[in-house]
Amino acid sequence: MARALDVVSSRSALLILREAFYGTTRFDDFAERVGISEPVAAARLRELVDDGLLAREPYQVPGQRTRMAYRLTDKGADLLPALVALMQWGDRWLQPAGAPVVLRHGGCQAAVHARLCCEDGHEVSPDDLELAAGPGRS
Amino acid sequence: MARALDVVSSRSALLILREAFYGTTRFDDFAERVGISEPVAAARLRELVDDGLLAREPYQVPGQRTRMAYRLTDKGADLLPALVALMQWGDRWLQPAGAPVVLRHGGCQAAVHARLCCEDGHEVSPDDLELAAGPGRS
Repeated sequence: MARALDVVSSRSALLILREAFYGTTRFDDFAERVGISEPVAAARLRELVDDGLLAREPYQVPGQRTRMAYRLTDKGADLLPALVALMQWGDRWLQPAGAPVVLRHGGCQAAVHARLCCEDGHEVSPDDLELAAGPGRS
Repeated sequence: MARALDVVSSRSALLILREAFYGTTRFDDFAERVGISEPVAAARLRELVDDGLLAREPYQVPGQRTRMAYRLTDKGADLLPALVALMQWGDRWLQPAGAPVVLRHGGCQAAVHARLCCEDGHEVSPDDLELAAGPGRS
């Protein structure tokens, strides 16, 4: 987890990833929606590209110069459960007014939550969780 | 989510919370297991207590002075899905040797993962996720 934190521990990096999940792709939109300066946005986007979470793609509006769009890679998209879990924790414990954004399952419209589930389909509470050494244990 | 990040965006704060989930309660053990100096451990533990994620409890070994133990509050324990999601993302994308620690469901021993699930019991992929304004939308 320490390495994961090195990649995503910057507050503005996580907010940029959240915007990318919301569908933002353009540099100007990231800076404006996250509320950071253009130099900070440029630095964070570069780090996220270097870490393989976002990919740069050229795009062109007819009659304008070529610009860069930023899209989530598979590695970046795979952070969604972690971001949703953190967002919902913040909504529960830090937002007296309730969640500003709620998530729904497109298929059935039921509310979506980040949960711990086992491969046999049970939801797992912290008390029911056991730790064991894994294959990468040094 | 921005407020959630203010609380947990420090790398050492998240590593301390991970140790608390693993069962660590004593000051010396936090400093040693996270690999941080005692002043840094003291500062992070104080912040986590101030933010309501850990609670300090006095304890005494017979014949020694009273010391402080740190235990997860409900607010702190509720971060577990976010921590597990982040840990498993790091295991998948940043650990060539595989996960150092795996999680099992005590009830059935099946492997546990952080997932996005809807209240009708479906697992939800990023493509199936819809955003809507929530009660706290300003």
